[in-house]
Amino acid sequence: MQLDLSLYGVRTDLAIEARELAARGGARTIPGVNENVEEADGITITRLSVTTAAGSQAIGRSLGNYVTLEVPGLRTGDTGLQQKVAEAFAREFEEFMARIGIGKDAPVLIVGLGNWNVTPDSLGPLVVENALITRQFYELVPDQVSPGYRNVSAIAPGVLGLTGIESSDIVQGIVERTKPAAVIAIDALASRSLERVNTTIQIADIGIHPGSGIGNKRRGLTKEVLGVPCIAIGVPTVCYASTIVNNVLEMMSSHFGGTGAPHTKRIMGLLNDISEQERLSLVKEVLEPLGHDLIVTPKEIDEFIEDIANVVASGLNAALHEAVDPGNVGAYTH
Amino acid sequence: MQLDLSLYGVRTDLAIEARELAARGGARTIPGVNENVEEADGITITRLSVTTAAGSQAIGRSLGNYVTLEVPGLRTGDTGLQQKVAEAFAREFEEFMARIGIGKDAPVLIVGLGNWNVTPDSLGPLVVENALITRQFYELVPDQVSPGYRNVSAIAPGVLGLTGIESSDIVQGIVERTKPAAVIAIDALASRSLERVNTTIQIADIGIHPGSGIGNKRRGLTKEVLGVPCIAIGVPTVCYASTIVNNVLEMMSSHFGGTGAPHTKRIMGLLNDISEQERLSLVKEVLEPLGHDLIVTPKEIDEFIEDIANVVASGLNAALHEAVDPGNVGAYTH
Amino acid sequence: MQLDLSLYGVRTDLAIEARELAARGGARTIPGVNENVEEADGITITRLSVTTAAGSQAIGRSLGNYVTLEVPGLRTGDTGLQQKVAEAFAREFEEFMARIGIGKDAPVLIVGLGNWNVTPDSLGPLVVENALITRQFYELVPDQVSPGYRNVSAIAPGVLGLTGIESSDIVQGIVERTKPAAVIAIDALASRSLERVNTTIQIADIGIHPGSGIGNKRRGLTKEVLGVPCIAIGVPTVCYASTIVNNVLEMMSSHFGGTGAPHTKRIMGLLNDISEQERLSLVKEVLEPLGHDLIVTPKEIDEFIEDIANVVASGLNAALHEAVDPGNVGAYTH
Amino acid sequence: MQLDLSLYGVRTDLAIEARELAARGGARTIPGVNENVEEADGITITRLSVTTAAGSQAIGRSLGNYVTLEVPGLRTGDTGLQQKVAEAFAREFEEFMARIGIGKDAPVLIVGLGNWNVTPDSLGPLVVENALITRQFYELVPDQVSPGYRNVSAIAPGVLGLTGIESSDIVQGIVERTKPAAVIAIDALASRSLERVNTTIQIADIGIHPGSGIGNKRRGLTKEVLGVPCIAIGVPTVCYASTIVNNVLEMMSSHFGGTGAPHTKRIMGLLNDISEQERLSLVKEVLEPLGHDLIVTPKEIDEFIEDIANVVASGLNAALHEAVDPGNVGAYTH
Repeated sequence: MQLDLSLYGVRTDLAIEARELAARGGARTIPGVNENVEEADGITITRLSVTTAAGSQAIGRSLGNYVTLEVPGLRTGDTGLQQKVAEAFAREFEEFMARIGIGKDAPVLIVGLGNWNVTPDSLGPLVVENALITRQFYELVPDQVSPGYRNVSAIAPGVLGLTGIESSDIVQGIVERTKPAAVIAIDALASRSLERVNTTIQIADIGIHPGSGIGNKRRGLTKEVLGVPCIAIGVPTVCYASTIVNNVLEMMSSHFGGTGAPHTKRIMGLLNDISEQERLSLVKEVLEPLGHDLIVTPKEIDEFIEDIANVVASGLNAALHEAVDPGNVGAYTH
Repeated sequence: MQLDLSLYGVRTDLAIEARELAARGGARTIPGVNENVEEADGITITRLSVTTAAGSQAIGRSLGNYVTLEVPGLRTGDTGLQQKVAEAFAREFEEFMARIGIGKDAPVLIVGLGNWNVTPDSLGPLVVENALITRQFYELVPDQVSPGYRNVSAIAPGVLGLTGIESSDIVQGIVERTKPAAVIAIDALASRSLERVNTTIQIADIGIHPGSGIGNKRRGLTKEVLGVPCIAIGVPTVCYASTIVNNVLEMMSSHFGGTGAPHTKRIMGLLNDISEQERLSLVKEVLEPLGHDLIVTPKEIDEFIEDIANVVASGLNAALHEAVDPGNVGAYTH
Repeated sequence: MQLDLSLYGVRTDLAIEARELAARGGARTIPGVNENVEEADGITITRLSVTTAAGSQAIGRSLGNYVTLEVPGLRTGDTGLQQKVAEAFAREFEEFMARIGIGKDAPVLIVGLGNWNVTPDSLGPLVVENALITRQFYELVPDQVSPGYRNVSAIAPGVLGLTGIESSDIVQGIVERTKPAAVIAIDALASRSLERVNTTIQIADIGIHPGSGIGNKRRGLTKEVLGVPCIAIGVPTVCYASTIVNNVLEMMSSHFGGTGAPHTKRIMGLLNDISEQERLSLVKEVLEPLGHDLIVTPKEIDEFIEDIANVVASGLNAALHEAVDPGNVGAYTH
Repeated sequence: MQLDLSLYGVRTDLAIEARELAARGGARTIPGVNENVEEADGITITRLSVTTAAGSQAIGRSLGNYVTLEVPGLRTGDTGLQQKVAEAFAREFEEFMARIGIGKDAPVLIVGLGNWNVTPDSLGPLVVENALITRQFYELVPDQVSPGYRNVSAIAPGVLGLTGIESSDIVQGIVERTKPAAVIAIDALASRSLERVNTTIQIADIGIHPGSGIGNKRRGLTKEVLGVPCIAIGVPTVCYASTIVNNVLEMMSSHFGGTGAPHTKRIMGLLNDISEQERLSLVKEVLEPLGHDLIVTPKEIDEFIEDIANVVASGLNAALHEAVDPGNVGAYTH
């Protein structure tokens, strides 16, 4: 019997985590979910497509394409590796746009979701600050724009608590007026494992859905709402304390499950045996004294966020503008 | 003969300065411009109405109402005085809204113009950060909003150079979706005198016009564009170096004009005598080596901006929400 | 049998946590450790004295006095409560100084330990920014200092990784030159429970010891090193992920220990039964993939740190300067 | 007759400006002052030595060596030029250290003077943040330090108003304990011309003298005080409004002096003729309403300071550490 982690209030915004959870039952392949994994230079790239309703239901993710870059080494602050990740991200993002039919010259609007006053939620605004913006030149001096630069605009709409306005309302108004061919939304995510925090980048063509992300974004940024495709770029920057609890239970299960001393094997047998209701109430009991906001982030979040925002912005600049060389992607960020 | 300062590229966003310049010719009253001045507690309040086209032309300002608070003492960082100014501003702003017909319960949208990365241009975004925002409660839990709180939302749309999008495009989209009864736009201004920098607050019902303010806001935020009234709150945070030059020339004129030694009197007679063309080329010669950006701000701008943003936000919160007492206006800002 | 948590790498900088751990064996009182607890207005104040070597060994803390304020409600951002805590802290700190013989007019040096670039480690520098500093007036215009203001100086010496210099070397040099009667060192701490993070303030007269705190402070700030008493003010701003693991194990133990279903009771019996070596390796196995830096902090750390730094600075200003009234302690901070 | 600008309260911290002023009388060379000027790539490098007491008196500067890099183009934000300036500065600084006898392996202490809360005064702290610090490795793991890295430590001691302690007291204590072979002090300066603000870097071996710089640093950082040489790196980030007044008067003089219409020639003759007392009272009359703090800085100071701090830190890192290549000097700064 596998642990049904959804009962523990496990939250994940990452498709690969949803897929892992689904695989707990033992299924190595899931019908309607295509997967391709590539590893090089310490970067694992997983390309995952959910192609059928059954596949969607199996992993609890919308139909669509998901590309994930996992780079455990990003935590070490290695600037050489950061550069490599920016380049790999640029390649993947360029291919991703081509695959979903966004042309090389199509104007795009970058939306940096999140709250700049809350460090782990500030990824989106930070990427916007470092994005290479050109739309004003296309508007004011169109004949002077150098070739190789796409028409790019950007906005960090803030969060509902600060503005009183849904991000989707702000973005819809801008899309109607400025007519981009696609929206690229950057958002900080929640992961179900501390290891993935600040080491993983996800690209998905499903937009931003109500309730995902760590901020207040009730209405979605989706093709249905906006009228144009919305590519979401997400980086997990926090995880729920409950997921650490779950990690421990899982570790205990795998650690003691097989080869342990006879009575520890028996413990785990029993642990797996207790009713899910009991397990749920256990986790609740642990978490309740701490209130509803039990979301944690590594102590070094300031530096991690700055580094990963630079990686994403550099990669995005290189992917969006032909004239920006993956070799000099850093030059346009602060 | 008075100096025709417009020839020196003098720029001012303040109606009282425009009125002063117009008064150089000696006119104590200007037809079509009503003026009322009140002084108490170190705060000079000037209420000025431009009521006819002739008045508008005479002072080079649009038809409309202008209230200015001048508080030279604000430079001393006196927190007691700041509190008094916030209260006076709250009173004036409340009256101003009543006079132009914005009801006590009318929803408003605050727009913080300017660039948060450029200290003297960050007034608008700072006021937005400290404004008491309630619209989300009206949207999500309307029956739970305490009486005395108006429906207030806010946005800091950024500047064209950072977003590629005109602020007016962003604001128009929001106004269409959220239907406020009025827009309140906060902006950093340029003054023609260093004394007024960070010591003066102007309220006007003429909106934000193309080319005014110190940032990039070509299209206006006016009733014509937005469909609802736009009240502009402005604080001069910079002045042009050219205005310092002009100040010197004027000072020389007044200093030596009357009672000086015989040959200094003759100097000034001659100075006034030289052709305006010569004077213009003089100022240009002084300024050209420095490029087009010759805008200066006091060294202590960081502290001044923080103080005045708190004054404006505190006053605004008290004026907009009946439940916020002018005596505790500070409680809602950081 | 109780869990011996030290085996799990549990770290705590709080005396009350050390005392709690020591009490696990069932001892309600510990010889050589005097304790007095007072609760009012949502603030629990624990005054703890370690008076004998035996007491010191029992709880693993130096001989000395420890006062702890626990205020779970601080997480709610209630400014009224913050004010109350600042006042309570001011009273306790004043008494604490009197008890260890620091006179009302004795000059003090405030040392804000930690790294201003790492939000959860920036408490010390933030308190220094908001402290009311007067030593320069005593030096330059001694006859003009108003009565009621103590001679106070302050330094945020940075961390070894940024300066290459031990904080203790910097502080010793300053103490030698400026001759304060006492040093007050502010530091961010690690707690063993998430609940205490940003809700607890500890005052202790034992100085700062090597290896305590969350930054790099190998050499201590103690009376032995400095030649004058050093009072440490600490606030836990992070906790180790391992302590969350431990919390879970404890919760499981207490939850299922007594009244659970028969087999869950058996689980816990067995859990308690497994060798400590097994438990240790379990925790290690959970933590190792994440590297050595597995320190977490709540997502809202930016706001929490700002709030608690204001509370500490306000309280400190009121405690140090007679002329600063506990009722207006906020007036001197930003 | 030349203008005696000292009467106008002209302040300059730059040796080249002092030399320019001295040259007003017409002297092309000044006995006891050697000068060598080199221009390439938009960078003008002036190497000036004051070798005799007479020379010192003539230009009002201490005996010593001064190297100035003037780069008007720095205002344009051209990152390629910034890189070139960093490289030129690295070369000059390396030669400068060699000339005054500081060996390639001599440990140095970098002191970043100024106030991080006042943008134009934050140059020193910003350079410290971006300096490559190694002393901790020399102390803790001396055998593991790679060749090519000098022993470098750094401190930003704050300003008297924030700490209550003179910077020189803090630095002296550190020098005594850590025994560097030299101190390198970075400070923001005042220039007498707006053009030089943020476009000029001065290196001098005379230390920091009481009253120079724009902050509060009454006691000096000199070889006499510290016991080791102190190299000062200064960048003008502000200028006095009075110097703008003077610029205007000078411009008027040169503009109208020769070829103007007869009566403008007569104006200037008269202007030069009025008593210095009258001129002084004129400037005072202009400045007095504005208080004593009439120091201005360009509106874009935030960006300028960040750029020039990066240039100085990059250049310093390359000059101090052989292993840091002038080609990659940027890699070690943020």
